Amino acid sequence: MRTATYFFIFLNLSLALFEEPAVYPLPFLATSVLEVLCLLVFLGRLTHFAKVTLHNVFWKDTKNICIMVAILLSLTDLAVYGVLRLYGVGSIRWSRIVRPVFLINFAESRQIRRAFRSIRNTLPEITYVFLLFTFSLLMFSLMALKLFGERNLQTAEGLPYFRNYLEIVFDLYVLVTTANSPDVMMPAFDFSSWYALFFIAFVIINTYIFMSLFLAVVYNNYKKHLKNEIRKLAYMKRRKMVEAFNLLKEEEGEQFVVREARWKQLVKLVAPDTSSSHRELLLRISDDEQKGFVDKKSFVQLADLLNIQVVTLRIRRHPLARWAPALYGSTPSRLLRRAVRHRAFVWTYDAIILINAIFIALDEESPYISYAEWVFLALYIIEILLKVYTYEPREFFGKTQFWNWFDTLIIIAALTATILNATLKSTMKYNSQQILDIVFILRVLRLIRIVDSIQRFQVIMNTLINIVPTMLTFGGLTLVVYCVFAIIGMELFHGKIQYFPANSNVPHALECGNPALKDSLFARGRYCKNNFNDFASSFIVLMELTVVNQWHDILGMWIQPAKLYFIAFHIVMVIIIVNIFVSFILEAFFVEYSLEKSEVETAIEQKIQELGMGVQEDELQQEQLLDNMESAEHELEGDGGTKPQSKGLVFKIASKRYRTVDALLQRMFEAEIPLEDEGPSFEEILNLSPSSAVPRSLSSESAA
Amino acid sequence: MRTATYFFIFLNLSLALFEEPAVYPLPFLATSVLEVLCLLVFLGRLTHFAKVTLHNVFWKDTKNICIMVAILLSLTDLAVYGVLRLYGVGSIRWSRIVRPVFLINFAESRQIRRAFRSIRNTLPEITYVFLLFTFSLLMFSLMALKLFGERNLQTAEGLPYFRNYLEIVFDLYVLVTTANSPDVMMPAFDFSSWYALFFIAFVIINTYIFMSLFLAVVYNNYKKHLKNEIRKLAYMKRRKMVEAFNLLKEEEGEQFVVREARWKQLVKLVAPDTSSSHRELLLRISDDEQKGFVDKKSFVQLADLLNIQVVTLRIRRHPLARWAPALYGSTPSRLLRRAVRHRAFVWTYDAIILINAIFIALDEESPYISYAEWVFLALYIIEILLKVYTYEPREFFGKTQFWNWFDTLIIIAALTATILNATLKSTMKYNSQQILDIVFILRVLRLIRIVDSIQRFQVIMNTLINIVPTMLTFGGLTLVVYCVFAIIGMELFHGKIQYFPANSNVPHALECGNPALKDSLFARGRYCKNNFNDFASSFIVLMELTVVNQWHDILGMWIQPAKLYFIAFHIVMVIIIVNIFVSFILEAFFVEYSLEKSEVETAIEQKIQELGMGVQEDELQQEQLLDNMESAEHELEGDGGTKPQSKGLVFKIASKRYRTVDALLQRMFEAEIPLEDEGPSFEEILNLSPSSAVPRSLSSESAA
Repeated sequence: MRTATYFFIFLNLSLALFEEPAVYPLPFLATSVLEVLCLLVFLGRLTHFAKVTLHNVFWKDTKNICIMVAILLSLTDLAVYGVLRLYGVGSIRWSRIVRPVFLINFAESRQIRRAFRSIRNTLPEITYVFLLFTFSLLMFSLMALKLFGERNLQTAEGLPYFRNYLEIVFDLYVLVTTANSPDVMMPAFDFSSWYALFFIAFVIINTYIFMSLFLAVVYNNYKKHLKNEIRKLAYMKRRKMVEAFNLLKEEEGEQFVVREARWKQLVKLVAPDTSSSHRELLLRISDDEQKGFVDKKSFVQLADLLNIQVVTLRIRRHPLARWAPALYGSTPSRLLRRAVRHRAFVWTYDAIILINAIFIALDEESPYISYAEWVFLALYIIEILLKVYTYEPREFFGKTQFWNWFDTLIIIAALTATILNATLKSTMKYNSQQILDIVFILRVLRLIRIVDSIQRFQVIMNTLINIVPTMLTFGGLTLVVYCVFAIIGMELFHGKIQYFPANSNVPHALECGNPALKDSLFARGRYCKNNFNDFASSFIVLMELTVVNQWHDILGMWIQPAKLYFIAFHIVMVIIIVNIFVSFILEAFFVEYSLEKSEVETAIEQKIQELGMGVQEDELQQEQLLDNMESAEHELEGDGGTKPQSKGLVFKIASKRYRTVDALLQRMFEAEIPLEDEGPSFEEILNLSPSSAVPRSLSSESAA
Repeated sequence: MRTATYFFIFLNLSLALFEEPAVYPLPFLATSVLEVLCLLVFLGRLTHFAKVTLHNVFWKDTKNICIMVAILLSLTDLAVYGVLRLYGVGSIRWSRIVRPVFLINFAESRQIRRAFRSIRNTLPEITYVFLLFTFSLLMFSLMALKLFGERNLQTAEGLPYFRNYLEIVFDLYVLVTTANSPDVMMPAFDFSSWYALFFIAFVIINTYIFMSLFLAVVYNNYKKHLKNEIRKLAYMKRRKMVEAFNLLKEEEGEQFVVREARWKQLVKLVAPDTSSSHRELLLRISDDEQKGFVDKKSFVQLADLLNIQVVTLRIRRHPLARWAPALYGSTPSRLLRRAVRHRAFVWTYDAIILINAIFIALDEESPYISYAEWVFLALYIIEILLKVYTYEPREFFGKTQFWNWFDTLIIIAALTATILNATLKSTMKYNSQQILDIVFILRVLRLIRIVDSIQRFQVIMNTLINIVPTMLTFGGLTLVVYCVFAIIGMELFHGKIQYFPANSNVPHALECGNPALKDSLFARGRYCKNNFNDFASSFIVLMELTVVNQWHDILGMWIQPAKLYFIAFHIVMVIIIVNIFVSFILEAFFVEYSLEKSEVETAIEQKIQELGMGVQEDELQQEQLLDNMESAEHELEGDGGTKPQSKGLVFKIASKRYRTVDALLQRMFEAEIPLEDEGPSFEEILNLSPSSAVPRSLSSESAA
């Protein structure tokens, strides 16, 4: 259901690829049928919602209203455009801008909506800083006009320098983004060295101070709202648990409690996929004195307990050890496994990777080197096979074994692509460029593995891996902004610039098919392919504008009002969204960093340990696995037959390494609420504003 | 003494302006005599230190050793260079790099030293991230070599594209700084649109993620070390106060106390410039039950009490009211003062400023407009005179009245410059360009005042004003880095590029006097004045490199090894120092922001209020002053004769608006230490490491 909705949302968005200024043109009828289909699906999804949720809740929700309006607008526009088209009148498909609304407003994309809410909340503060920034820009422009306007200076291209006020404002705005430094300074600097001071002051105030201030405002709001959302969630959970307790409670002595049988029933209901031994463990934690019931305080913790991913880990025998025990237990086999577990095995392969890197850098043409490639591929395959032989396969390909998965997939892909290429080459005497490119990339990607051998890099890599899921949110955010701007850009600038391959002899090939561009920096830099002629090209131009450099050259040819489009894009994308992205990375890093030090979960870990269930810190195990478990204890274990395995069952707490930042923050905040605190009522929770923070937490935040 | 040391430090640093590749050349004898003089002064300062401090403390301090070594090196180098010069042998004045050591190591520049310590502490972590970043760069370069190296592509300048591995690494490093985007992408993009994906992935990973990671690491360390330093200071102070208490204590009943007389004596001794009424106030706070003695808890707070700038404010009569009471109290005078205090007065002047802005933007040539300038100047002078007439002058020019000072100074300067210019013009028929430029700038600066009329902007402006003192630290830091790099740069690149004015007809004028630069982007952009021929030019080139854009073009002509110089500068300046600067602004903003909400000082403020000394929140008063005190209460007060003035004395707490971030942080941290806690011993305090933070504060930080 969820996947289907996403599929139709992306289908709807990607229609822009096939519509009028198209990469792969489809007839209008086809795209409009597809669009109607998408809209019908959305309508269906919405009616489904309406049935499931309460009537007045449904109509109160702005999301649903937004979707309805968007569907209506799209249909009207489609109809009008279709009719006009029949009569041969051209018009604009303006409703295409509305399409990202579906991506934002469907309940599945909560993260994106939260990001948008965060932006909306940040806007007022950003606006004030922005106004002050604009004021500073206008003041500096006025000074520039007075200082340089009447000097008859010329730019390097021989154009008049700093004559027109509006152009000065634009030039200085570009200087804030640093894109035209130092060009914009040179004429004045050539005239008198002292004028450099003007530009230095400008850059310090506007580029360094104001841009940092934007980041500060965005980051501050991001943090504030994130905390608020998480506080809401935590209170909500606490509240619901208390309500559940009140429903289930029975009197026992002086207090109300939930009895064991009922508790177990509940756990089975809410988490049907937990094993019975896991349930037993949870009960032993909740009811640590084994009184046969769970009191309120422990009951409220149940949700957190269920959230802690306690992995029930059976130390399984290697399948080969079961199927062919004699062979697997024989001396050569044991020696082999011991060798694979040895640290030297890792070192050998690190060395192989380094040699491989040198071979890749060398020239491909000589036959020896292309044979060497086969040798390396074989070596990597042997490594994986050996590891699977030594370690239990299901553990080796466990959910959290990122690097094992990475290795195996890369090697399999490389093997497939290389064989495919060799086949094509030998049978059809033809090198497929695409396949070769993929082979090259895969070959280099294999080298990344070496990073995981160094402990210090692991920490940074883990931060980066943890960030990936939330980065997808930013991907969504960027997608929405890009879509809107790309569609506007295509309407405004479509066909103004054309790209001709290098060897074409069309008259204006060098000027991108536009005589106005003759001798411009745009044409000289061979930027012709940066145009708004189709959806894909527009995306790439917008990407270049996001990177900022040379953006004034990219927009070079367009007339004054079009500059507003680029400035608007810069403000939205660079000042707001990129800053949110940076805030997010900063916050993720700080959370990871403080997590390295503090121990949020120790309380429960200790309990598990007290219960003598043989719980070990997961990371220890994992590292041992990665270091090929060379420790004596573990080798015994692997070789079967000693204490931990005799039990056959070990609980472990799922690795801290692969959790999302959100979950971490939530846990941290929960550690702050006293256990007795039931939190405010539902109404209060929903209206909780970031400024109404608990005084204590605020003061400690400011001190921190 | 302190000023003198700074003077000689800057003299020593600025010697580079007059030495060999000089802006204003001086003979070698003169500069060397000056340098010897500076070194002697430093030596003298050092011997003075040695006398004042204990013997083994002095020799343990690395600062002093550093200075001694630096003096020795400088003298040796000077002697060697002088002797070689006599025999006509050229050599390098390498010891000039050592000069910034004096700026760092003299005890007066504690802030800069702290910043350097912070950098040193950050280095290990930065290094790991940097290594990972380098690894990523090398991997991507390898991929680029494989993907594009054998395609025979050409750049827009017709040069081979992505053939040599080292050049690819450099090009991609430049792309990380975004300086050559999108140029570096265009040839591959023209070849196949899919190759854009390679560059998009590169930019996302290296420019966005890694650069944010650098900021995160720097910011995290900055915060950590700042907190540690402040904690040290706070503990140190607490400890010292406890020691003082133990020295002064007497027994009183069951507890030890300090008696009133002794306490007063102490306060007089440590803060001789407090008025007796201020001392009385402090005593009333410390000994709030008026028992005649101060107990330990209150005594320890004394340092904080003294730090709170309680301004003793006598509500003084206007001097005119004393000298000419009849005139000043007459009806027209009262009406006038009432008018000046009215909100409409501010609005009128805001309108005048706006009209003035339009006039400035208009053409200067027409005589009416140049007359209008005189009118505006007169209006501004009248405004200031009226304000001084209405408000008490000493209050109007109070220490914290930033905008009043700003206004007055700007207007006086503008008046002087305009009169000077007019005189020169009428007597010598000659317009001095410098004076005119200054007049222009002052005229525009006057307009800034309008910002302070809007409440929301005031908050941001205050943050900015508060940041200024610490920005000077960064100025020092930047100065040190620039000095070192400028001196190295001058030795390496001196004379390679020459600048000729536009109309010169020297053969290679257009190629900056260097045939190798023919048709290069460097010459085409007319960058000839960006060279290392003297100290001032080097600084400007380094500034341009700091801004990053086009830096690969600026270094364009130099051969491979020279690129290392530029990369080193980029790493030191952009990755480390600019990030510290951004961290600092972020932190300053957050502190200001949380200060707006939380109230650190209320406890003492409440006490002062309880004591009925008529303390008012300063900001209220200030705003009234700025809003021209239109409230009825205040008008009565201004007109003399009612309650507050009859007392003639009011304490107020100095504005929160003009405090440094350091002081704020210190106060916040102190609020965290419980009053009973005497803190660790001196030894422990000095060895306090940031990681040994109090667990509580750490966990609350991570939650915050």
